[in-house]
Amino acid sequence: MQELLYGVAYYDEYMPYERLDEDIRMMKAAGINLVRIAESTWSTHEPQNGVFDFTSVDRVLDAMHKAGIHVIIGTPTYAVPTWMVKEHPEVLAETSRGPGRYGARQIMDITSPAYLFYSERIIRRLISRVSKHPAVIGYQVDNETKHYGTCGHNVQLKFVKYIKDKFGTLECLNDEFGLSYWSNRINSWEDFPSVAGTINGSLGAEFARFQRQLVTDFLAWQVSIVNEYKQANQFVTHNFDFSWKGHSFGVQPDVDHFAAAAPLDIAGVDIYHPSRDELTGKEISFGGDLTRSLKQSNYFVLETQAQAFPEWTPYPGQLRLQAFSHLASGANMVEYWHWHSIHNSIETYWKGLLSHDLDTNPTYEEAISIGQDFARLSPELIGLQITNEAAILVSNEALTSLEWFKLPGGQTDYNDIVRLLYDRLYEMNIGCDLVHPGSADDLDRYKLIVVPALYAASDELLERLNRYVDNGGHVVYTFKSGFANEHIQVRNTVQPGIIGHACGIKYSQFVTPSAVKLKDDPFGAGEEYNTVSTWMELITPTTANVLAWYEHPHWGAYAAITENRYGKGVATYIGCLTTPEVTGKVLERACREAGLWGQDQQIRFPLIVKSGKNLAGQTIRYYFNYSAGKHSFSYPHGNGLELVSSQPITSGETTELEAWGFIIVLEK
Amino acid sequence: MQELLYGVAYYDEYMPYERLDEDIRMMKAAGINLVRIAESTWSTHEPQNGVFDFTSVDRVLDAMHKAGIHVIIGTPTYAVPTWMVKEHPEVLAETSRGPGRYGARQIMDITSPAYLFYSERIIRRLISRVSKHPAVIGYQVDNETKHYGTCGHNVQLKFVKYIKDKFGTLECLNDEFGLSYWSNRINSWEDFPSVAGTINGSLGAEFARFQRQLVTDFLAWQVSIVNEYKQANQFVTHNFDFSWKGHSFGVQPDVDHFAAAAPLDIAGVDIYHPSRDELTGKEISFGGDLTRSLKQSNYFVLETQAQAFPEWTPYPGQLRLQAFSHLASGANMVEYWHWHSIHNSIETYWKGLLSHDLDTNPTYEEAISIGQDFARLSPELIGLQITNEAAILVSNEALTSLEWFKLPGGQTDYNDIVRLLYDRLYEMNIGCDLVHPGSADDLDRYKLIVVPALYAASDELLERLNRYVDNGGHVVYTFKSGFANEHIQVRNTVQPGIIGHACGIKYSQFVTPSAVKLKDDPFGAGEEYNTVSTWMELITPTTANVLAWYEHPHWGAYAAITENRYGKGVATYIGCLTTPEVTGKVLERACREAGLWGQDQQIRFPLIVKSGKNLAGQTIRYYFNYSAGKHSFSYPHGNGLELVSSQPITSGETTELEAWGFIIVLEK
Amino acid sequence: MQELLYGVAYYDEYMPYERLDEDIRMMKAAGINLVRIAESTWSTHEPQNGVFDFTSVDRVLDAMHKAGIHVIIGTPTYAVPTWMVKEHPEVLAETSRGPGRYGARQIMDITSPAYLFYSERIIRRLISRVSKHPAVIGYQVDNETKHYGTCGHNVQLKFVKYIKDKFGTLECLNDEFGLSYWSNRINSWEDFPSVAGTINGSLGAEFARFQRQLVTDFLAWQVSIVNEYKQANQFVTHNFDFSWKGHSFGVQPDVDHFAAAAPLDIAGVDIYHPSRDELTGKEISFGGDLTRSLKQSNYFVLETQAQAFPEWTPYPGQLRLQAFSHLASGANMVEYWHWHSIHNSIETYWKGLLSHDLDTNPTYEEAISIGQDFARLSPELIGLQITNEAAILVSNEALTSLEWFKLPGGQTDYNDIVRLLYDRLYEMNIGCDLVHPGSADDLDRYKLIVVPALYAASDELLERLNRYVDNGGHVVYTFKSGFANEHIQVRNTVQPGIIGHACGIKYSQFVTPSAVKLKDDPFGAGEEYNTVSTWMELITPTTANVLAWYEHPHWGAYAAITENRYGKGVATYIGCLTTPEVTGKVLERACREAGLWGQDQQIRFPLIVKSGKNLAGQTIRYYFNYSAGKHSFSYPHGNGLELVSSQPITSGETTELEAWGFIIVLEK
Repeated sequence: MQELLYGVAYYDEYMPYERLDEDIRMMKAAGINLVRIAESTWSTHEPQNGVFDFTSVDRVLDAMHKAGIHVIIGTPTYAVPTWMVKEHPEVLAETSRGPGRYGARQIMDITSPAYLFYSERIIRRLISRVSKHPAVIGYQVDNETKHYGTCGHNVQLKFVKYIKDKFGTLECLNDEFGLSYWSNRINSWEDFPSVAGTINGSLGAEFARFQRQLVTDFLAWQVSIVNEYKQANQFVTHNFDFSWKGHSFGVQPDVDHFAAAAPLDIAGVDIYHPSRDELTGKEISFGGDLTRSLKQSNYFVLETQAQAFPEWTPYPGQLRLQAFSHLASGANMVEYWHWHSIHNSIETYWKGLLSHDLDTNPTYEEAISIGQDFARLSPELIGLQITNEAAILVSNEALTSLEWFKLPGGQTDYNDIVRLLYDRLYEMNIGCDLVHPGSADDLDRYKLIVVPALYAASDELLERLNRYVDNGGHVVYTFKSGFANEHIQVRNTVQPGIIGHACGIKYSQFVTPSAVKLKDDPFGAGEEYNTVSTWMELITPTTANVLAWYEHPHWGAYAAITENRYGKGVATYIGCLTTPEVTGKVLERACREAGLWGQDQQIRFPLIVKSGKNLAGQTIRYYFNYSAGKHSFSYPHGNGLELVSSQPITSGETTELEAWGFIIVLEK
Repeated sequence: MQELLYGVAYYDEYMPYERLDEDIRMMKAAGINLVRIAESTWSTHEPQNGVFDFTSVDRVLDAMHKAGIHVIIGTPTYAVPTWMVKEHPEVLAETSRGPGRYGARQIMDITSPAYLFYSERIIRRLISRVSKHPAVIGYQVDNETKHYGTCGHNVQLKFVKYIKDKFGTLECLNDEFGLSYWSNRINSWEDFPSVAGTINGSLGAEFARFQRQLVTDFLAWQVSIVNEYKQANQFVTHNFDFSWKGHSFGVQPDVDHFAAAAPLDIAGVDIYHPSRDELTGKEISFGGDLTRSLKQSNYFVLETQAQAFPEWTPYPGQLRLQAFSHLASGANMVEYWHWHSIHNSIETYWKGLLSHDLDTNPTYEEAISIGQDFARLSPELIGLQITNEAAILVSNEALTSLEWFKLPGGQTDYNDIVRLLYDRLYEMNIGCDLVHPGSADDLDRYKLIVVPALYAASDELLERLNRYVDNGGHVVYTFKSGFANEHIQVRNTVQPGIIGHACGIKYSQFVTPSAVKLKDDPFGAGEEYNTVSTWMELITPTTANVLAWYEHPHWGAYAAITENRYGKGVATYIGCLTTPEVTGKVLERACREAGLWGQDQQIRFPLIVKSGKNLAGQTIRYYFNYSAGKHSFSYPHGNGLELVSSQPITSGETTELEAWGFIIVLEK
Repeated sequence: MQELLYGVAYYDEYMPYERLDEDIRMMKAAGINLVRIAESTWSTHEPQNGVFDFTSVDRVLDAMHKAGIHVIIGTPTYAVPTWMVKEHPEVLAETSRGPGRYGARQIMDITSPAYLFYSERIIRRLISRVSKHPAVIGYQVDNETKHYGTCGHNVQLKFVKYIKDKFGTLECLNDEFGLSYWSNRINSWEDFPSVAGTINGSLGAEFARFQRQLVTDFLAWQVSIVNEYKQANQFVTHNFDFSWKGHSFGVQPDVDHFAAAAPLDIAGVDIYHPSRDELTGKEISFGGDLTRSLKQSNYFVLETQAQAFPEWTPYPGQLRLQAFSHLASGANMVEYWHWHSIHNSIETYWKGLLSHDLDTNPTYEEAISIGQDFARLSPELIGLQITNEAAILVSNEALTSLEWFKLPGGQTDYNDIVRLLYDRLYEMNIGCDLVHPGSADDLDRYKLIVVPALYAASDELLERLNRYVDNGGHVVYTFKSGFANEHIQVRNTVQPGIIGHACGIKYSQFVTPSAVKLKDDPFGAGEEYNTVSTWMELITPTTANVLAWYEHPHWGAYAAITENRYGKGVATYIGCLTTPEVTGKVLERACREAGLWGQDQQIRFPLIVKSGKNLAGQTIRYYFNYSAGKHSFSYPHGNGLELVSSQPITSGETTELEAWGFIIVLEK
């Protein structure tokens, strides 16, 4: 692909009246050069079992091709038709809350043979029909696939076989999972109880891992079918999504994104984020960094918001800011979900690029300017290669284990800790990748690895991290890291177990703080921010240097935050839940020591800097103003050309960014 | 009926010991001239299948007759006996939460043939037995009937046939309901999925309408049976109830009161309201206005509170104030639920007119004075005819649609908006009727029609409202009105669609406000009250005069509240959720323009004025003081007789009302 | 037993590696002389149906015996193995929420014949095997037994037979339970509906009583089996637990502790309480007083916390304070749950005496000093006989009835009222026993009986309390007492019914207060504390002296708190929910009048005094400092020996207690 893709999800099937020509006219006016179609409308394309009707696909393909708009075909398998459920009720996933019932999308047992049979048939019918159509540039398999909690009889049986394969003997399983506790031992395979009611976190987490594998397998299976038809210049992608806290937030608990992305040609993702006064760019950056890391390459934003919720309708300038922020993280596509606002069913509250009146509106008008700039600047901006020296290690296993063994109060979860750290790096303009337990071979690429709450991890991974430090790397751990093994068996050595060597610390007690501070405000965070909440480990340094002690009548002799030189590297350990301010200071210290503190670190949020090399090897630097006020900064790099205005910019020049404004510098 | 009815629900069956004579003695002492019996005690009257025992009915009838107390017989069908459920478990309603279980009342499938068979049998047995008894003045069919969420297999089948009748083809249904979305299309009638799990708001709302029809049909069926026995001087009524927010609040979502009231001779209702410092009369007035509007005639308050909850036990004077307030809205009956406080089961927290000790108490003693005044003033007060020039248009369809498509935050529902408007009119002493989508022919009777959040409405209705304005009427709409058609399909024209013509406005975007005010406080509401919350439409006037602009850095160019001259009339549009203060000012302006501002508008809440004509055509005026302090006002109308004190009152006379006090003027 | 027992629950089966010798070494070092084993590990001891493996029991018994550590054997029946549930799914309790599912402990139908058959078999196998082992000093039957909500078909049938036995005829049942209400009458035994859905509080409460009886029967049955094997010097106990509000709190709703304790040799209990800055000793004292009252003798603390939750990890000194507080209430054993911290399953957040590293830690180190002192002081401290002159009357029936008929707001339950009163006595160092409706014969032992919210009680009990007052006793009642009979039928006499005679009051109305105070702050509680909340009865004194009137514009003529001389005694009645401060003042007044005000009442919380006689008849006095600051007091009793320091102490000597410190005086 040699052009930036600016797209919309398009549902001809949902249109209240014949609109295709008018829609295309309006798309062209806005520079839309891509639509994604067909991923939600199985019941239209197969109105009855074995009766196919691809009229809407055909006509949209032809019309788009005529207009020079590319098309991504989605396999329509994430929402099943009524006839299938009536004929084969077993396609609905049985979950721990009971049997499924028809209505919503994403309610299937993705292991059901009936579902798989019909899915394969429609995929083959659809893809074989369209694959040679000149409008089709690629495919999206399914959509936001997850396991939907499926845990019925067949899934349980599959899981028992999986356990048998993995652990060999029940003796081994009983020991590793501690099933003797509360008389949960399984002494015969026939006795294996349904995992739906288990209270054993090891068993529960293993089932969650197994369920994630179901997703990986399902997507790989779809990709393999589509690949049979895929043409040389076409791609296969998938639309991953994140954990949700009113918006895209953190690591997806139900999918192993790294594993599931393996068979894809390009990683795709949807990113939905707060807007208006809450627009910070953090989700765009986090989602982008994670998705770019999946295949260490450019990615597609297959869905993001145009007008969206009533509370997100953007202020003037924000839609532009968002679009270019995606590019700055390495996206080659920005696609809105969706073109028009839907007139029925459940999501009528959600506004597309067009309102329900299907006419122009201020947001659509802003899109026109984006489309023009995308087209004009595509040669310089496409294919941005980003090289980071910092990484955050994220782990599905750690996430699941902290769901089973929640932090006191139940308000803080794994992703909160991930984002506590990520957001600080973002604010300091420290670019980072996301790595995962399977990335062990890649760690030495980084000067700094940040490890949030790695509650469950194998010995191998932790020893690898020790070696990484020994070899000169810098790791920043938070509390809870290293606590349990990969089966969530708590380590029976002094904590934090294996990483205690690199960190130069030990602890055997941990408590919840109440009005605890860090002694003497060691980071100058100020009274209000120098506090500790939710969790504190009573750390005794062995070889570590203590960066912060607790201020407490009984626990003042314990360390809160430590730093230890180990081999050629340094390991920092944050033994308590610190405020964003303190966390930022600890990370800043680590970044400085790791040699990550450069000119872009003179600039701070709300000014955000992103940079990389374009396909021609030129350096591209984006400067974004994530605020409602004007902000000035001194441009610190070499002379260049500001691409939006086509004006030269010189090193050291004071540059003012408008509210929600940005510049893009091509350095000469 | 030529006397005001002052009654109690009476349960001889619940009495802990033989009390009939003593109860009647105490009733007579309090002026009670009516009891309602039998509506809850099927298991007493039919202890076994086909074994009947009407002993308690017979003896109460005879004793009441002897004492000169009238009796209303309730059909006992809203609570089924144990034997029926054991023999025919299918009489319990299956709901979206699963199968029913025995215990409470109102748990039946009101379409179950077994339930209907037994219901008809006991109704015929009971009514045929009592219809000629001289004590019996009328009947209440069932009690607070609703559909109880019934949605089992048989109900689903009935619904599919209803849909087939209504829409003819699935093509039409799929299009109108947008079932293509998320692959919900139904392409064969056999595939029609259970609606229990649907996520399609059009389908869900249609099912709700169908369920309301079940209630209408059920009540009509009961009325038709009772009518076979009804004597010339007897009536049939039903006890409707309202949506509940800790007390009677707004439009009942599960019943179409207007349709269901059609076969009744007289409309009946229960009204339960806050008390003590929270007593405002608003629920008495709203409930009364709505019930009076059902048949545009006087009505019965079949249940209201005496002592009630511990938090409602009235202050001295309040029971009197409440009783006469019911009359002032057009009630011909005030009946307490219930005579005595019950000693067992679930509602022992609820106090009747007597406490559990079945002896006198301060509330009962206050009732004595009410009974005396009712008897004395009955000739002047009975049959009050009320003529209002304002109306509020309420709609079950709009209510349901705003349940499917909730306002942001989920805290404000349809009835909140209805009451936001109604309560302001009440405070300004603007009397009003309630009209509904079926009242289109009656609109021209009114000078002002207030239309809260009419989210879902047919083209016909909206065009009728436009014509109403064109012909000289005044309409006040709130936000969300006209947004979707009667199938909750969002209109694909510029909003607010059809009514945009009369309102002279358009909008294509709507957002949730955050710290938004009305520019320059156009209504002088004051800093604190000049705010906008939850919802704001970004309105551009076409021909309208803007009453208020938003104060906002980006959205200041949009109108918040507009007024438009259209033909001979005026249409006001409130495009955001305003405070009670601003809402009141907008309504005051509309009332003034509509010619509704008279002498009684000089008086404001907590002083409340109600007036009408008695059967002799004389004007009766009630002045109520809904406060704990004394209040004076200058009596603005013609000389008259104050009925409570039997003292003359002269025009312009300064009159003082005691705390929770009132006067009644018969104008000469 | 002639020594204080200092123990731990020990799970050899859960150990991550061979630890037995090392564990015993560490136990001995800490003075541990008791372990409880086997109560949770059925699946280890019977890995398959009928296949037994007591290896871990045998080896632990032998090793403990060798080390001189006593062993309590628990029957392993509160957690069932996987094979049993697979073979006989019916052993899972069906509850009102539906069928059970495997996973947790305590999920069985304790009436299931399959469960009982297997339980009996393993009990006989286990107990017959170990009963003559010299290490075994006693047995614990089951653990924290409750009925687990079992209400399936078989339980329902059993309940119907129980009802038939108890009430004889349905006529009687219908009348007493008021089943006519809402058509709930049962006119044929065949029609008896499942009680799972009942809305009749009398029926629901009777079922709850029946369920408690199931627990009593189940425990008696286990005891009878174990007794067949029990040796002369062995005991049988059970580990009761309390209602839970984040910690042990009040009367257990699901068990009649008094009845269930009857067949036991010694009562046992677990007590878990807040710690750190929230450590007050109240739960230790309440739990101890209740458990000591069960058999009016010394008791075992079979489980209490060592490190526990992260929010409970004790401050230095607190573990000691807690251990001796248990002794001071009459415990002869303090046993931690549990020895080590568990590495898997669900409770890994809970820390034992050892952390997960199975090594020493500060809490373990403090235990060493406790073990030493227990051993040294055992002769003086064991078998403390405590004689109290005050008692609190608690009632399962009252508790259940206040669950059915909750106080307004739903925030205050029966146990809150129990603790409101108990805690005030504790703070005043008034020792008390707990008595129950079955203790009627014992009442005259006490000078003061405090009766919290005795909502449901038989005529006999209330008349007994009247006689108690008449004979010279002092009773303090709170609101709601005497309101309903033992079937929760509200009394149809003027309230508070029977006790109104002794209290010299009457009321017929009750309300929820809003901003109500006691007139003129009669107890000098201060503005902030002189308030009334949640509930107020409008009391008219007949013969009573009014201690407090309500301050209210309408209800100021009613009494809030009264005191009445009746015969030779006095009855105090608190007609509203008072603050702790006012409640304390009322109780202080009652204590003074009842002659309970002595030298130890000069000392107040946080200084706590407990005293009794040791086996040699010597007076032992404990003085505890439940605060983080030092506190001095003047020792008011006779000269003695302070046992911890072995220093003499003289009467009147000013003594300083360290933070969380204590002394123990043996009076000479």
